[in-house]
Amino acid sequence: MTATRLEPYQVEKAAAWLDGRVVETPMIRCEALDRLAGCRLWLKAENLQTGGSYKMRGAMLGIGRVVERGGRGVVAQSTGNHGIAVAKAAAVYGLAATIILPTDAVSSKIARVQAAGASVIFAGTTLDERLHAVDEVRARTGHEVMDAFDHPDVIVGQGTATLELLAQLERRGSALDALVVPVGGGGGVAGACLATAGSGISVYGAEPRGCDSMGRSLAAGERVTVEPEPTVADGLKPALVGRLPFNIAREFGLRALTVDERSIVRATWLALIEGKLLVEPSAAVALAGAIELSRRGRFSDIGVLLTGGNIEAGFLYQLAARHKSAEIGRTEIG
Amino acid sequence: MTATRLEPYQVEKAAAWLDGRVVETPMIRCEALDRLAGCRLWLKAENLQTGGSYKMRGAMLGIGRVVERGGRGVVAQSTGNHGIAVAKAAAVYGLAATIILPTDAVSSKIARVQAAGASVIFAGTTLDERLHAVDEVRARTGHEVMDAFDHPDVIVGQGTATLELLAQLERRGSALDALVVPVGGGGGVAGACLATAGSGISVYGAEPRGCDSMGRSLAAGERVTVEPEPTVADGLKPALVGRLPFNIAREFGLRALTVDERSIVRATWLALIEGKLLVEPSAAVALAGAIELSRRGRFSDIGVLLTGGNIEAGFLYQLAARHKSAEIGRTEIG
Repeated sequence: MTATRLEPYQVEKAAAWLDGRVVETPMIRCEALDRLAGCRLWLKAENLQTGGSYKMRGAMLGIGRVVERGGRGVVAQSTGNHGIAVAKAAAVYGLAATIILPTDAVSSKIARVQAAGASVIFAGTTLDERLHAVDEVRARTGHEVMDAFDHPDVIVGQGTATLELLAQLERRGSALDALVVPVGGGGGVAGACLATAGSGISVYGAEPRGCDSMGRSLAAGERVTVEPEPTVADGLKPALVGRLPFNIAREFGLRALTVDERSIVRATWLALIEGKLLVEPSAAVALAGAIELSRRGRFSDIGVLLTGGNIEAGFLYQLAARHKSAEIGRTEIG
Repeated sequence: MTATRLEPYQVEKAAAWLDGRVVETPMIRCEALDRLAGCRLWLKAENLQTGGSYKMRGAMLGIGRVVERGGRGVVAQSTGNHGIAVAKAAAVYGLAATIILPTDAVSSKIARVQAAGASVIFAGTTLDERLHAVDEVRARTGHEVMDAFDHPDVIVGQGTATLELLAQLERRGSALDALVVPVGGGGGVAGACLATAGSGISVYGAEPRGCDSMGRSLAAGERVTVEPEPTVADGLKPALVGRLPFNIAREFGLRALTVDERSIVRATWLALIEGKLLVEPSAAVALAGAIELSRRGRFSDIGVLLTGGNIEAGFLYQLAARHKSAEIGRTEIG
């Protein structure tokens, strides 16, 4: 699949195909966040997408094509959201799906994969262990592999979120100078590069510090494997970005940003309490990156791809615990 | 002001005036909530409105008119959201604002009123005590009173949220059979009655059990004062609905619904974890009401006015604490 060359027009084709099959998520502004950033932030609320993340776009497109080819089932590895999306998309098409999850997947994501009717197999904690399990299932069942990021349909599918944001801005008579997208394996940000090609928008891939496989790869001029450090952004831990995403990122001039754990947690809270949006830490990485970027003072309109909102109650509990002492809680749950 | 008679066309006029002055909030669907209700729920996300609630609509309209009349300032009593909205709208117009809050107002709402630059006066815990304080300020300053619900501009302003929802549905080629709106003093639901007049949509006013001043008033055929019981829905505690809202509610055939505390808390959690929207318990009352209504099986498309999202960290903490034990929390905030 790595011989594939993707072109910007393919994102437009994908968007036309996905029209009516995925949600057109709203573009949201928040006065308090704008004030904080000192510029206009245009939030693309993909946490409101079916399945709770933008991964539904790539999964619907990819699985739709599997069905066209007469495939009988799919297998995918994921830390969560891609697994949920593949499980839900397969259910839409009545296709069998097997999802390989790490043993440290967050329980709310496991529950959502299972609720969609997919078979779940747990395989270690590393990408290699999961990929090995994928091969085993593929060999046994003959089902097609739906890679989480190194897959053309997934890349152009995820890219439609960016294309939709650009169209929404255009209808408002506005435009972006910059766009910030969280980077795990790089599928979403590669799609964003394709979607913005020729627009003059600077695309930034935001990664947790210590999980900056894209940043290090771009600096080295080749894909670099990192040993991911622990992060609250559980969706952004791949040790190595995809070959196809990396090639696109390099070709289209992706810039890299890293954010620390403290700013990710803060951005998750700000999105919630000021933006009124539940986003997962992996999505808040984009907001943290945009706030960081805004400090450089070069941009007046920054797009922020809030990629998903599948979060655990335990994380919310910790987040609220940090802030509740700052107020006098008067409303008691009876 | 009680001699005023409001007509449906005035909501349309208000909407035209407010166009570009308030946010067109998104209409959101959530598969999981639809499945739970067994029908289509069309969520109007006014938690994403400027100031975090639909009260901004009435406040912008009302204060805009005060400015046209040459007024120098406004005074308003509120349990929170109307106060935030008046403070923010006054700031937009550069007008002085004094907000009378109860001593048990939630601290996050107090902070938001103050952040908007308004003067805050605390006055007891009852509506009577706050109204007395309003009179005192009006007499002393000559500033106009912006009542939280018994005010024509506030009623038609709040009604524009419903009108906007109807327009969004029409663009989607859909329509409502029913609409559920939370009831405090009745301004929002009276606006909804005007906005839906002649459409055949059944409008339901949802109240916390024990704070059902509108329900009891409609049953009695006259305004009835209740002794409000404690509720997590801190915005819906007025002991008596407004005269003007009550007259509109009766004339346009408003129906009443009550929901218990448990279902309000549950709806707040569902909106958050499934809908990915932070709504305050007073807004979740509409979702709880819609779920209750859906059980009666007569409706296929129910509109839900999610009126606001200003919530305390302490409440979120309690809410998450109830659910975190059901999962194995693996993501730790460092």
